[in-house]
Amino acid sequence: MGRVRGRSITAACALALVPIAAGGADDDSSPIFGVRLPAGYRDWPVISVAHEAGDNNDIRAILGNDIALKAYREGTRPFPDGAIIARVAWQYVSSPENDAVFGQPQSFVAGAPTNVQISVKDAKRYAETGGWGYGQFENSKPNRSATLMQTCALCHARAPKGNDLVFTHYSQ
Amino acid sequence: MGRVRGRSITAACALALVPIAAGGADDDSSPIFGVRLPAGYRDWPVISVAHEAGDNNDIRAILGNDIALKAYREGTRPFPDGAIIARVAWQYVSSPENDAVFGQPQSFVAGAPTNVQISVKDAKRYAETGGWGYGQFENSKPNRSATLMQTCALCHARAPKGNDLVFTHYSQ
Repeated sequence: MGRVRGRSITAACALALVPIAAGGADDDSSPIFGVRLPAGYRDWPVISVAHEAGDNNDIRAILGNDIALKAYREGTRPFPDGAIIARVAWQYVSSPENDAVFGQPQSFVAGAPTNVQISVKDAKRYAETGGWGYGQFENSKPNRSATLMQTCALCHARAPKGNDLVFTHYSQ
Repeated sequence: MGRVRGRSITAACALALVPIAAGGADDDSSPIFGVRLPAGYRDWPVISVAHEAGDNNDIRAILGNDIALKAYREGTRPFPDGAIIARVAWQYVSSPENDAVFGQPQSFVAGAPTNVQISVKDAKRYAETGGWGYGQFENSKPNRSATLMQTCALCHARAPKGNDLVFTHYSQ
């Protein structure tokens, strides 16, 4: 899922690259891709963690289902169909409570949730976007912006091809 | 587990507060507390994430076993016996690979692993340290420093009592 909108990406460019009707979509799923929030994703194992500064200014855990984790741990690329990656993000905030114990400002923790981004691998269904379908969820509800979905695909198209258009690397 | 050594903590103070033989210890477990690296901890669900700057300069995922997660989600304090919290940390590094896509330096990711810190709740066994036993593991091997273990207990003794001497709060 795109972490930030690329500065050079335009809506016209997005429309040219992403088929509008690649997947179904309803009130519980993302536009264009029809991606739903997977049951139990919050309990999935950690692939890695990151802090995105800039406009996002979040701290995030990147989680994966069994298929995604197995592929990560065995170095399988492209990811097999059924792999799902869940990027869970929270506001990046300092912790005065911790800093008071440590004696200096040094502790940055997760604040309020921002959104959850889901990447689903289906080489056939999402063939026109490198085999990945995307969704973004706020308060467990899909963001209904088709433009946002196009941005997901465009940003990931710029991620390393050797990592199957995924930004995150597995952390031991 | 202590995130950083409190500046005012001395070895003499630690020795006064922490019993040297609170638990057993062998080559696979921590000094003083006898805490082992729990099987399967790397697949446990995320409690939260954080970035500790300062001397640590790490990014971390705080994971929990079923008992810990249930207590977190239900707000149960003190944690019941058997709760285990695993703090997994990596070097905090920038990602030139991501930054090249985003067009500005903004992406900070997990580098090489630093250590794993384990907190085990057992109110009776660890009665003299608030019911918590501690261990730190590097490359899956316990750090054998008794002084480090004393520091764990002393630092957590300064964590909020209302959170049962645990620093991390659950992130939805």
